[in-house]
Formats: sequence, structure tokens, C-alpha cells
Amino acid sequence: MRIDMQAAAAFLRGADRILILSHAHPDGDTLGSATALAAALQGMGKTAAVQCGDPIPKNFEFLFDGLAQPVFTPETVVAVDVADPKLLGKAFNAEYGGRIALCIDHHASNILYAAQTWIEGESASAAEMVYLLLQALGQEITPQQASRLFVGVTTDTGCLRFSNTTVRTFRIAAELAAAGADTYHIIQTFFETKTKTFAALERLALDGMRLYFHDRCALMCITQEMYRESGSDESETDRLTNLPRQIEGVRVGVTLRELADGEFKASVRTHGEINAAAICKRLGGGGHTGAAGCTLHGTKQQAINALLREVQAELDTDTID
Amino acid sequence: MRIDMQAAAAFLRGADRILILSHAHPDGDTLGSATALAAALQGMGKTAAVQCGDPIPKNFEFLFDGLAQPVFTPETVVAVDVADPKLLGKAFNAEYGGRIALCIDHHASNILYAAQTWIEGESASAAEMVYLLLQALGQEITPQQASRLFVGVTTDTGCLRFSNTTVRTFRIAAELAAAGADTYHIIQTFFETKTKTFAALERLALDGMRLYFHDRCALMCITQEMYRESGSDESETDRLTNLPRQIEGVRVGVTLRELADGEFKASVRTHGEINAAAICKRLGGGGHTGAAGCTLHGTKQQAINALLREVQAELDTDTID
Repeated sequence: MRIDMQAAAAFLRGADRILILSHAHPDGDTLGSATALAAALQGMGKTAAVQCGDPIPKNFEFLFDGLAQPVFTPETVVAVDVADPKLLGKAFNAEYGGRIALCIDHHASNILYAAQTWIEGESASAAEMVYLLLQALGQEITPQQASRLFVGVTTDTGCLRFSNTTVRTFRIAAELAAAGADTYHIIQTFFETKTKTFAALERLALDGMRLYFHDRCALMCITQEMYRESGSDESETDRLTNLPRQIEGVRVGVTLRELADGEFKASVRTHGEINAAAICKRLGGGGHTGAAGCTLHGTKQQAINALLREVQAELDTDTID
Repeated sequence: MRIDMQAAAAFLRGADRILILSHAHPDGDTLGSATALAAALQGMGKTAAVQCGDPIPKNFEFLFDGLAQPVFTPETVVAVDVADPKLLGKAFNAEYGGRIALCIDHHASNILYAAQTWIEGESASAAEMVYLLLQALGQEITPQQASRLFVGVTTDTGCLRFSNTTVRTFRIAAELAAAGADTYHIIQTFFETKTKTFAALERLALDGMRLYFHDRCALMCITQEMYRESGSDESETDRLTNLPRQIEGVRVGVTLRELADGEFKASVRTHGEINAAAICKRLGGGGHTGAAGCTLHGTKQQAINALLREVQAELDTDTID
């Protein structure tokens, strides 16, 4: 059942012993939103905690600072930024996938698996929704809460740069800044600082970037060999996925990452009307119009060929030269 | 004489035949602020125009769309974002440097050369000041005006990322977005799009970047040879100056650009307490605490040595390891 924010707020007011789940391979939005919601519910006198099917990356650990993480038998399970219970990860999906009472999500592709889903497909981040929800719940946006939500707002918008950024996004970012979010350090951490290993990996990746289809598609492939050469690893690749799309004239940017087991994870980023989700859906994946992903098997060249085939099909629908 | 915003507004209300000057080597802030101010004054029924001692770079031409540029004998000369009349360029300094009636500036280093100076050293951009001034003048922020000011607000803050960005900056950015600024295209143009030649130049520059002083200083040098190899030119180098500072642990990032005449232009970007203006001042330049510049003579190695000497002196004052 789809519900609105007021209904989600009413439901949470009546709930307790609330377990909040982030998606696996957690990012700033799922963790920032979940921790902010948990802290707000604790502020309302409820028992609440956040769990994630994967370990919390080091640079996100500060989101949990000052958050009690009680152990309890959950009465109510809430998923935040989780479009499909599969994204909870195998174990969490098996344990909780069938009993999500409330899902708060901004993916239009949400498969509506929860008993109640509050979904805003136009929202740039789940954090924007949680910000409004916290206000509906009458919960103060402390500097720490503002920082948690600012992480979500910025990491899901490339720091307010992607096309999903709306006037509301700018307004909420400003309100979070005014509420005391540590905007400068958050932005430095997630957008303006490169480890030496990341800088080395970025150079290798850019060196291998190739253009296709009259320079309307840029593709780069990050291999296990590149991790070895740069001293970097998979945890540093998220920020690379925007690079191919940045080249002037490129409509589709593709980043392929070779996983340790030999599979390839593709991240597709598009401009304008080109539908990244459509490209990835035909390869068994999904996502948003401007940003989507899928996993490919076979050799590197097979993965590239499969992707280029679908990119070309989608580019053929493009009306802008 | 230093004046406040209300006095600047009162002065402009009483003025006419107003020539607004941008600094030479114009950037988004000086041009966005000047064009927005000129359009507002025209909206008040006044004769006003913008001039710059150097040609307007192609990507800034749209700021002049819809702006009448009448030719007249100026009664009142206003400088925007110009800390020193030398920065007007030689010819403009000779013609107007001694007769600036009003200077609107956000450089704390402004030498107070104008008859009246409204200066806000804490403002991240002149555009923030002009935004508030236009409101004081009762002038509507149309979508086009909002776009002009958004260019200034974003280009002087690295798209809200630099340490000069304040809560006011975020708030004004949000208000400009709400007023209809074409935020997405402006951000794409100035921050998210790389020409192929720029991408090639960036790779060459990064390949040559070196670390000094226990990795607390990163320096890269962009040579005329690199322009030839990449097909790029000086006009594309501004965006490179932030790269050295991005490496984790680096406190001072230096970009040296070899000019056609063999001189070297240095851009110094710092973190925290390290004073970029102090480094550059000792080499005959100036600027802000976090971003400053100077021009160096001699060979490339002499330029590097001179800079490193001053960087080291400044790093010695740094208390953070």
C-alpha cells in the first residue's frame, strides 16, 4: 500500500521497538537517512536501532556517533532507501524481507514489497524525505542530525550537481547548513579529498577511458590489476562513476568494475532523455533515469560488448545530436 | 571611504550613466555580479553598461544576453570584485583607475582605492553582495538575474565546496534556485563538463604532479608543451588549480602555469590555517587566505624553487600535522 508522509509519521508515532534497515553496499543516503530517523525516534522515547547487511564503510562511521544501538526483538521493521528487498543483502532479505512494515524510498522503481510504502520518485534523496518527516514528527534538527541528513542530500546528488537536484534540494541543503550541519567537512570528505591511492586509480582509469558512437558514449573499465597497481580497492570506485559522463558531448557514461570473482559491475550515468535504467534493466539491473547499474558475467570484452549494444539501442532513441 | 550596503544602494539610486567595470582575466563572479547589477540599474530607468579590460570568455557570454550595452560618457564608474585598480588591466586602470566612485568587493585585501568602498571580506563572492543589494534596491530577481548571480555564487566557491562557503551562501544559492536560476546547466557548464582537450590536459597535469614536505604540499606545472600535446590552452586551466589541494593530507596545493612569454603564473590553494595570500604576497602577488596567486620570472625550476621556499616558510607556521 502506498501511503503519504503524514500517514508514515502517524504510523511511526504509534510504533515502537523499531529496527531500521539500510540497503547493503550502503551509501551516504541510506545510512544518513536511517541514522537520522533512528535518532529522532529515540528522541521520541522509542527503542530504535539501525542495521545494515554489510559492514559500515569507515568514512560513514561518524553517522553513528552518539546514536544508541540497543539490541532488541523488533516489533516494527522499517526500510530506508531500499527499492527491492533483495538490496538488503541475502541474509537480511531472508530474515526481514517479508516483514517490512514501512518503506521510505525515493526510487520510482521501488517494487512496493513493504506493507506500507512512502515513496517520492522525484526526491533527489531519501534524506530529503526524512528531513521533512522529522519536521512532521516535531523532532528538532540538531547539528548532528543536520549533518547526517546533509550526507544523504549531498552524496545522492553529487553535491547538488546531478539532474535530480531540485529547488527543494537546494532549500533543504541550506536549512541543514543553517541547522548546523558540518557542511565543509562533509563536502571535503566525500567530494574534495582524494587519497593518494584513489588519485593513482583515477589516473589509470582515465588513461583507459574510450569513446564510442561518435563520442556520445564514454566507457572506462576498472580492473583488479588497476587496484594492485594503484594500491586502491573497490571501496574507492564510487566516485569514479561520474567521470565518463563529464566529457563534453557524452550522453552515456559507463564504468565497469571487475569484481574479485571475475564478474563485472556496470554503473551507467546519462544526460538528458537517455534512460540509464532502461539500459540496465535489459541487462538484469535497474535504477534511476540518470543513474543505474547491473552486473555482467563473462570476459571483460563480453561485458563491454553487451553494454555497448544496449547503450547503442538507447542512444538510437535520443533526439539530441 | 568604507560604506555599508544601504549607503551603496542610496548612492546608486542617485547615480546615472553608470559604467560598471569587471576585473581583467574576468571570472564568473566579476561578470555575473557586474551584469546583474547593470541589468538592475537599467530596470530602475538608468543608463548603465558593463565593460572589461579583457575579452569576455565564450562560456560567460550568456551573462550578457538580454543586457543592453549602451555607449555613453560615464558619469559614475563602479568596480565590482576588483581589489586593486591594477586588476582592471593596464588600459582600463589608466583610464578609470583614479575615478572609481564605488567599489563593491569581497576581497579583504582590497586596497580601498575607490571614493567609496562597500567591502565584505567574509562574503564568498561579490555576487552574494549584489544579490542583497538588488533586494535593497527593490529590484526583482528574474530567472535571468538569478542565473547571473548563481554563476558568481558557484564559480567563486567551487560550487559551494570551498571553505569560504557560509550558511548565507547556501541560503542565497537556494533563493536563486527558487527564483529560477538555471542551476543545472550552469553547474554542468562550469563544473561537470570537460572538453576533450581539457580532459587530456588534466591527465598530463596530474601525471606531473609532485608532493613535497612530507606530502603536505602538492605542486603541478602546466607547460606550453602540454597545451600543444593536449590541444588545450590557458583558457582551460582555471579548473585545474583545485586539484593539487585535493590529495589527502595536502595543506598547500600549487599550480604553476607557463605563460606564452615564459613567465609563470602561480595559483596557491590552501587548507585550514595556511595562508595562501601570505605565500603569494612575499612573491609580489596577493589574494584570499585560502586562494591566492602571483607571477614569477625565470626558469620553471626557479619558479618552483621560489614557491616551495615560501610554501615551506608558511607550512612551518602550521600547527596541524
